[in-house]
Amino acid sequence: MSRPRQVTVLGATGSIGRSTADVLRAAPERFAVSALVGGRDAAALARQAVELRASFAALADPAGLPDLRDALQGTGIACGAGEAAVREAAERDADIVVAGISGVAGLAPTRAAMKPGRSLALANKECLVSAGEAFMADARRIGVTVLAMDSEHNALWQALQAGRREDVVSLTLTASGGPFRTWPADRIAGATAAQALKHPVWSMGAKISIDSATMMNKGLEIIEARHLFDVPPDRLEVLVHPQSIVHGLVQWRDGSVTAGLGAADMRIPIAHCLGEGGRLDFPGTRLDLAAIGALTFEAPDVERFPCLRLAREALVAGGAVPTVLNAANEVAVDAFVRGRIGFLDIAGLVDETCAAWGAHGASAAPTVEEALVVDHESRRIAAGLLSRRGS
Amino acid sequence: MSRPRQVTVLGATGSIGRSTADVLRAAPERFAVSALVGGRDAAALARQAVELRASFAALADPAGLPDLRDALQGTGIACGAGEAAVREAAERDADIVVAGISGVAGLAPTRAAMKPGRSLALANKECLVSAGEAFMADARRIGVTVLAMDSEHNALWQALQAGRREDVVSLTLTASGGPFRTWPADRIAGATAAQALKHPVWSMGAKISIDSATMMNKGLEIIEARHLFDVPPDRLEVLVHPQSIVHGLVQWRDGSVTAGLGAADMRIPIAHCLGEGGRLDFPGTRLDLAAIGALTFEAPDVERFPCLRLAREALVAGGAVPTVLNAANEVAVDAFVRGRIGFLDIAGLVDETCAAWGAHGASAAPTVEEALVVDHESRRIAAGLLSRRGS
Repeated sequence: MSRPRQVTVLGATGSIGRSTADVLRAAPERFAVSALVGGRDAAALARQAVELRASFAALADPAGLPDLRDALQGTGIACGAGEAAVREAAERDADIVVAGISGVAGLAPTRAAMKPGRSLALANKECLVSAGEAFMADARRIGVTVLAMDSEHNALWQALQAGRREDVVSLTLTASGGPFRTWPADRIAGATAAQALKHPVWSMGAKISIDSATMMNKGLEIIEARHLFDVPPDRLEVLVHPQSIVHGLVQWRDGSVTAGLGAADMRIPIAHCLGEGGRLDFPGTRLDLAAIGALTFEAPDVERFPCLRLAREALVAGGAVPTVLNAANEVAVDAFVRGRIGFLDIAGLVDETCAAWGAHGASAAPTVEEALVVDHESRRIAAGLLSRRGS
Repeated sequence: MSRPRQVTVLGATGSIGRSTADVLRAAPERFAVSALVGGRDAAALARQAVELRASFAALADPAGLPDLRDALQGTGIACGAGEAAVREAAERDADIVVAGISGVAGLAPTRAAMKPGRSLALANKECLVSAGEAFMADARRIGVTVLAMDSEHNALWQALQAGRREDVVSLTLTASGGPFRTWPADRIAGATAAQALKHPVWSMGAKISIDSATMMNKGLEIIEARHLFDVPPDRLEVLVHPQSIVHGLVQWRDGSVTAGLGAADMRIPIAHCLGEGGRLDFPGTRLDLAAIGALTFEAPDVERFPCLRLAREALVAGGAVPTVLNAANEVAVDAFVRGRIGFLDIAGLVDETCAAWGAHGASAAPTVEEALVVDHESRRIAAGLLSRRGS
């Protein structure tokens, strides 16, 4: 029996982190938990740290430190809170780091977790969307293996094993199409946040649910795929597939197609990443196609879902434009959820922000540090445009 | 530029052979045709030999030799006819041999084509169904790489690249379900040969079309898969999928599923085999899932399609039983096509022949030579049972 693999989880108390804990619990002999990083929920982080016998627990919110200390008293588990503690957690000895902090907040800790020889299981989108070129270049230079943990990218990564990269004709990411897939354009225009939050397949947080409703989520994912798999933009395709069973397809030069499938259960791609080439026993739902009956597919409609077009334009433009797109989208989604703007204004605000940025001329691809500056500046521009809308 | 790969095609004028010729024509710089073997059609064989610039053409039927000689006069292409000429063709220098002769007739030439270092692209079912253990053992001993060329097995082979063999939970072969998929049992009982020959998806010969209607075809394919991939019978599953787009699925231990898809075009798996790991440019139909719209799946019904059950029983029994099953099925399908027995009698006759054989006690897995003897004896038993039916 080889020694257990040391695992650190950034974003331990979120959706990815809780699913990761499920997978770790199912194979306790294979893993030792090095560090867990949570956001604000000291009690949840402490519970998980005790259960998984972590060595160290860090909370991003400094105000939670007294609660965390109390909860971990006598357990022998070291803890800390705030930026320095999070960085310490990211840098501690580990073989695999699960990067599950969502949003731009995940950028710095995930970058800090890059150490030679490590596997970095990436669920954070922003590392690739906002700073993809620099992030992947850093990974190559440092010697970090980036593992794709999103269900779509994980499916593509597995399917890509069936051939050589130079024989790929296209990579297709599927999209559920979101709750407005069948709505006519005029009804979509009046969609409310409550309607947008009802995702048909996946149970997710508010931001990603809205992104799914606008299909910006899939736009961000093709940007991720571009960096993860080094495939040019014109070879990245989106296919609407409401059942979300086929997650990704690789079309090969010879007409063969290899696809990655699975039940809509995040524990499956997480288990695949944590298996690092071998495979763990599965803790969740088995796929039963006869029980599902039918899988349907349709072309995406960029007229009704313009965010998909905007994301592709940002991908083709390159440089800092995807960084701007992502920041503007976060501002717009937040404004929509708060009822300040309508559903179609999300795409409108993103478009205007990218245009305002583009007026400064082309920009080079940002480093991870620069991406944070561009992100901040883009949010300021978006907020300005938002207030001028007179809401 | 590396030297062209030398290719020999056994069964050049049949369905597999003509599709292979299409693939070879599309990449003339990559291949040199060593030998072509046809059955009875001298004119078609000569045309193909000239077009593909083959070195040698052999016809199985000795009576066709004068026609073949005439047609090839002045071309510089050597030719012969009869068993010895077919063997000579199979043994001539080649890097890849496409084994596309259908039926038990393919056994001896395919076996003769096994030479150290060769790739053997296998479309002949009987090598694996009638003598699978010995055939694969011979391949390993001699150093032949067996490439799966059937669309289902080729899809599984590609999908299996996504992981380690020990992590496979199951291999699923899809079946179109044939023309009687939706028919109730009493209507199936009265099915005619003309009805059975109307296959919904693939355009194929009579024998395989009837096998598809009884679903014996899929039964034979799980026996093939057992030998090709060394997976135990209880890990081989069949799923009815009328559109025949998903050809095979690998279920992994961690819940991930990898699938092989493609348009219903035999040139796709042929191109994959001839690419030997690299991939050729595709000469046929691209897969467009949005245009197809829906893929449906249902569990197979072994009550209405008992041949599937019989094949699985033969697979589990092992030894010579699959050999007997296959021979009895050929006799039964022939009798059905000639209107001598009804559709359900196909399964009945196969069952009775296997039972009559089983009465002699268990038998070891036959060598390729022994399989031919068992095959002959089984046909004799089946014919006897057939005549006793009073037709």
